[in-house]
Amino acid sequence: MVIVMRNGATQEEIDSVVDRIQGVGLTAHLSQGVERAIIGVIGHGGDVRMVVDAVEAMPGVENLVPVTKPFKLSSREFHEQNSVVIVNGVEIGGDEVVVIGGPCSVESREQTLETAHAVRAAGGKLLRGGAYKPRTSPYSFRGMGVRGLEILAEAREATGLGIVTEVMSVAELPAVVEYADMLQIGTRNMQNYNLLEAVGKCPLPVLLKRGMSSTVEEWLLSAEYVMAQGNKKVVLCERGIRTFDTSARNTFDIVAIPLAKRLSHLPVIGDPSQATGNASLVHAAGLGAVGAGADGLIVEVHPDPARALSDAAQQLTFAQFEQLMTTVRAVAAAVGRGA
Amino acid sequence: MVIVMRNGATQEEIDSVVDRIQGVGLTAHLSQGVERAIIGVIGHGGDVRMVVDAVEAMPGVENLVPVTKPFKLSSREFHEQNSVVIVNGVEIGGDEVVVIGGPCSVESREQTLETAHAVRAAGGKLLRGGAYKPRTSPYSFRGMGVRGLEILAEAREATGLGIVTEVMSVAELPAVVEYADMLQIGTRNMQNYNLLEAVGKCPLPVLLKRGMSSTVEEWLLSAEYVMAQGNKKVVLCERGIRTFDTSARNTFDIVAIPLAKRLSHLPVIGDPSQATGNASLVHAAGLGAVGAGADGLIVEVHPDPARALSDAAQQLTFAQFEQLMTTVRAVAAAVGRGA
Amino acid sequence: MVIVMRNGATQEEIDSVVDRIQGVGLTAHLSQGVERAIIGVIGHGGDVRMVVDAVEAMPGVENLVPVTKPFKLSSREFHEQNSVVIVNGVEIGGDEVVVIGGPCSVESREQTLETAHAVRAAGGKLLRGGAYKPRTSPYSFRGMGVRGLEILAEAREATGLGIVTEVMSVAELPAVVEYADMLQIGTRNMQNYNLLEAVGKCPLPVLLKRGMSSTVEEWLLSAEYVMAQGNKKVVLCERGIRTFDTSARNTFDIVAIPLAKRLSHLPVIGDPSQATGNASLVHAAGLGAVGAGADGLIVEVHPDPARALSDAAQQLTFAQFEQLMTTVRAVAAAVGRGA
Amino acid sequence: MVIVMRNGATQEEIDSVVDRIQGVGLTAHLSQGVERAIIGVIGHGGDVRMVVDAVEAMPGVENLVPVTKPFKLSSREFHEQNSVVIVNGVEIGGDEVVVIGGPCSVESREQTLETAHAVRAAGGKLLRGGAYKPRTSPYSFRGMGVRGLEILAEAREATGLGIVTEVMSVAELPAVVEYADMLQIGTRNMQNYNLLEAVGKCPLPVLLKRGMSSTVEEWLLSAEYVMAQGNKKVVLCERGIRTFDTSARNTFDIVAIPLAKRLSHLPVIGDPSQATGNASLVHAAGLGAVGAGADGLIVEVHPDPARALSDAAQQLTFAQFEQLMTTVRAVAAAVGRGA
Repeated sequence: MVIVMRNGATQEEIDSVVDRIQGVGLTAHLSQGVERAIIGVIGHGGDVRMVVDAVEAMPGVENLVPVTKPFKLSSREFHEQNSVVIVNGVEIGGDEVVVIGGPCSVESREQTLETAHAVRAAGGKLLRGGAYKPRTSPYSFRGMGVRGLEILAEAREATGLGIVTEVMSVAELPAVVEYADMLQIGTRNMQNYNLLEAVGKCPLPVLLKRGMSSTVEEWLLSAEYVMAQGNKKVVLCERGIRTFDTSARNTFDIVAIPLAKRLSHLPVIGDPSQATGNASLVHAAGLGAVGAGADGLIVEVHPDPARALSDAAQQLTFAQFEQLMTTVRAVAAAVGRGA
Repeated sequence: MVIVMRNGATQEEIDSVVDRIQGVGLTAHLSQGVERAIIGVIGHGGDVRMVVDAVEAMPGVENLVPVTKPFKLSSREFHEQNSVVIVNGVEIGGDEVVVIGGPCSVESREQTLETAHAVRAAGGKLLRGGAYKPRTSPYSFRGMGVRGLEILAEAREATGLGIVTEVMSVAELPAVVEYADMLQIGTRNMQNYNLLEAVGKCPLPVLLKRGMSSTVEEWLLSAEYVMAQGNKKVVLCERGIRTFDTSARNTFDIVAIPLAKRLSHLPVIGDPSQATGNASLVHAAGLGAVGAGADGLIVEVHPDPARALSDAAQQLTFAQFEQLMTTVRAVAAAVGRGA
Repeated sequence: MVIVMRNGATQEEIDSVVDRIQGVGLTAHLSQGVERAIIGVIGHGGDVRMVVDAVEAMPGVENLVPVTKPFKLSSREFHEQNSVVIVNGVEIGGDEVVVIGGPCSVESREQTLETAHAVRAAGGKLLRGGAYKPRTSPYSFRGMGVRGLEILAEAREATGLGIVTEVMSVAELPAVVEYADMLQIGTRNMQNYNLLEAVGKCPLPVLLKRGMSSTVEEWLLSAEYVMAQGNKKVVLCERGIRTFDTSARNTFDIVAIPLAKRLSHLPVIGDPSQATGNASLVHAAGLGAVGAGADGLIVEVHPDPARALSDAAQQLTFAQFEQLMTTVRAVAAAVGRGA
Repeated sequence: MVIVMRNGATQEEIDSVVDRIQGVGLTAHLSQGVERAIIGVIGHGGDVRMVVDAVEAMPGVENLVPVTKPFKLSSREFHEQNSVVIVNGVEIGGDEVVVIGGPCSVESREQTLETAHAVRAAGGKLLRGGAYKPRTSPYSFRGMGVRGLEILAEAREATGLGIVTEVMSVAELPAVVEYADMLQIGTRNMQNYNLLEAVGKCPLPVLLKRGMSSTVEEWLLSAEYVMAQGNKKVVLCERGIRTFDTSARNTFDIVAIPLAKRLSHLPVIGDPSQATGNASLVHAAGLGAVGAGADGLIVEVHPDPARALSDAAQQLTFAQFEQLMTTVRAVAAAVGRGA
């Protein structure tokens, strides 16, 4: 932490800040510049953070500049090697680019099983599908609930593909844990701390989507909420951010992928379906993410997108998914990965 | 709903869309332009929405243009008069501009009581204070919990000021309901649908903060989640949005206040403390919101901001709060309101 | 400038950075933290900036934290008192809140004169009107050019109101200078450095609109471009920024007004017409800006907005403008200003 | 154009709008819904646009929904085949992914020639280099001017690589045209209409960078400004947009590449150097853009980035550039392109 004092801060103000820092057991290191004094705070990350609340409103303080990153368990500094998270026997974050495919929502037994078989045939390694759906309007279709989970389990039985499905609340967690192989935390819940801590106490791996207006740092702090409860099996997922440009549904921030991988040891995948909201852009967006170093993709697939009950515009047909898989494999090989 | 077909859509594609619309019992009205066909869907709001999922991915469809607003109970079209929400005898949305003051977090009995007396003396009508605090980092101070609620209740006893306090999860709701006069839903939980429905079943009024990257329309849809469960006592709160400019903590979107009031009958207040994150800007931001037509303000006040355990930089001293109240009254009068 | 070294930077890397700083004649001040070394650079603002280019890509450097603001002539530190800019005898930045009114574009002699009289009658102090119009599409109406300037001059003759009009290129500057009392630089040209330097050599005051995606700091650096050429008569104008929310045309960032006034001594006004793009929101936005401390407003007024050739939706009628002026005076008085 | 009338618009208001439309020679097509009337305007693109200014402020009008795109010469509807732009014999927009490499700024003869040879050896097809530099601060290094252009011409002589260089103002245009093979319009000048029209009259191809806060549609309208003057040789360049996330310098919007290519026939390349501002992210960003379908990349390369006079942090070393070229070739092949 570096504390920048105001131009014209009095000696007394400077001394008070130094005293406060020393009062919490840390070392203060004063540099008197021509226009301003700067105070470096020396100590370990966690301790230094406590200083912020202590000094930020003191007279004469202009601003505080964090030097140490605020996350720890999720940080690359704490854990140098890439982490590999295993979901139903599939490694995420290893050599291969892993593709998770499936419908936006579980709508019926037939739709889900048919899709699971198609995903598997095309080379997908895990099955996605929503049983509980977060919807902006309370009047939209909100998922089949437990019946949807049962259908997903049947699809796993039939195809061997592990199940990735969203959990939206602590109340639903026991049911979801019973059926799922990986718990998805959606973009709107990235800072639902209560839910993060609850999945942090579960044995299942967690797919943590980035909040649509969250910085990379906030995303890693949310991973920290999960990991601090003991669950280290977190996979990050970039799914597009909200910006001024609404030509596509979101802006797919592919550079967040290498950035998160530099700051953190956790695997990072991309979601080109949510990012673009448009099937005709999923191909380009997905290949862009793999080119940028994603450890995997999560892609929406439906037997008949035009009749889907949610997000119809962004789901791929089976043929489109197969074609995507072929090119994903080629691009993955080009950047030195399998798929 | 207006459906815009692609330039070059075939007659067959156009006919299929018309058939689908008529198949769900609505009327389709075709306009054949020089370059494109446009299909108007005629029916009531709710029904028309179901059409979106049905047609958006059909071949030949370029895009869908909503004509009717997707919210209903919260909309001005549904309920023409301004709603007034009463909290502990105080009217929000009536003639007077109501100021809610208090500390960011309840830190101690003394701090809270002292602040409550100062808020009341300066003309504040309700007391705010956080017992459960959402924090970006799991390692920050996260509130006193039930003990904090007890302290708030004691402050109400001592001053008569009703209590506004945040609830972050369904699990905490029973405890909060026992003590609070108004339930605050924070910006990170604006789309925590589970929590919205739970407070929708409570008898207490709800202060619904706008999500930091939510549109006005999404905000009203979140109000809809609460109201659809039976609780009509919702007050909206603009608290700053996230933009490219980080000079202040957030960008205070004061025009969202008249916009929300035009689209909805619900009262709308502003939070200049969260919006700016900086005590020296709270005055200007608060007066700006009142000038723009806010029904009230929620403002952070602390006996000694420099020693606050959270958000130290943005809390006002008692003297600053008193000064703000004086000018708020003058500006409120200038725009034809009491305070 | 503070240089934060990487965790694990070698002694050699640290020494190289220190050497480079000393090599350009500045003092380096090393703080060795537990995890990282921090190097403070001591010297005057301008010199320190040259260090950035010198060290930012050196091995071992994590990031650079500016301490001194990069603007000088426009900064409050350089010039403590508020500057007052005089336009045709009217003081901007003094005690009174100054309102500039007039049509978006000059469309005809009648429209402009009629509007000028109405602006004056309602208490407006200067006349705005575009003779050269920046338009997103090359196929839109782009202004009357020199004929428009002549009409504005005639309106000044008739009403005594000074003329504020936009200049879009160096080529048009001589013509505009011949007629105008104040040169407006539009939002799209805020970083047209060539144009900024050209108006910096003119004797006329400059109204510098904020770029729609510019930070407050960049805005002041653009003022610096003008002032560095000798023209100190710059008035800043907040006109809305571009964000994810498109409910109004832009997001009116009223907190930028007190922020700019704190960092700079220059007057700051607000443009509620461009900010909202909607006549029915101009009233609330304008009063919000005055509440937040604006030194003035610039407002679009038209005899018959529904027949305007540009920005029809955002121009006020004469009656709406008169009503706005009445309330502006009341709010200005409430915050201790005349109008 | 679809005109949506307000809920409760009177028959008289509806009739007036219909009259106004018919008054400009277009056909109005009225759909009377349950809650609102909708009026379709039928006619050719350009004519329909004139309607906007005519009706948008009429009483009873709620909003206008454009159906036809506002750009024409740049649009895919107007010109179905991909355009190929030839620069010094190199095809942009053809089968091969073209890489343009070179320093941010021309700093010296040695630096530029050395870089040109390295770019050519690694497989780069064109040489970039700034002689005129747009800088946020007037106190930063602003380029060598004509001497820089001479050096670039010498580098072309020595290597055969065509020259891509920025022109910032109409005044500099004659000098730049004399030396350059392609004129670059920078992000800050994307809406400098004066400059766009001037390069529209030049015989040289134009590289049009996207404005840092411009939509894809505005970008194509700026291309329209150039093309409407007769110069059809426009290449678009995505270089990152400004969003709330400042982890990288900008947010690289790779999905804008396929989007622009769908709406327009013009070639689109990506600039991973400006997008990320960080050499260590250029590799991932560049490969992401190629994966997403870019027709080329423009990349900053410097013999000794740590000593560069501008943008030191984002320039690649020769070895990094060579490595990037190798992987670009592999990814281009994977997506069915040469390089």
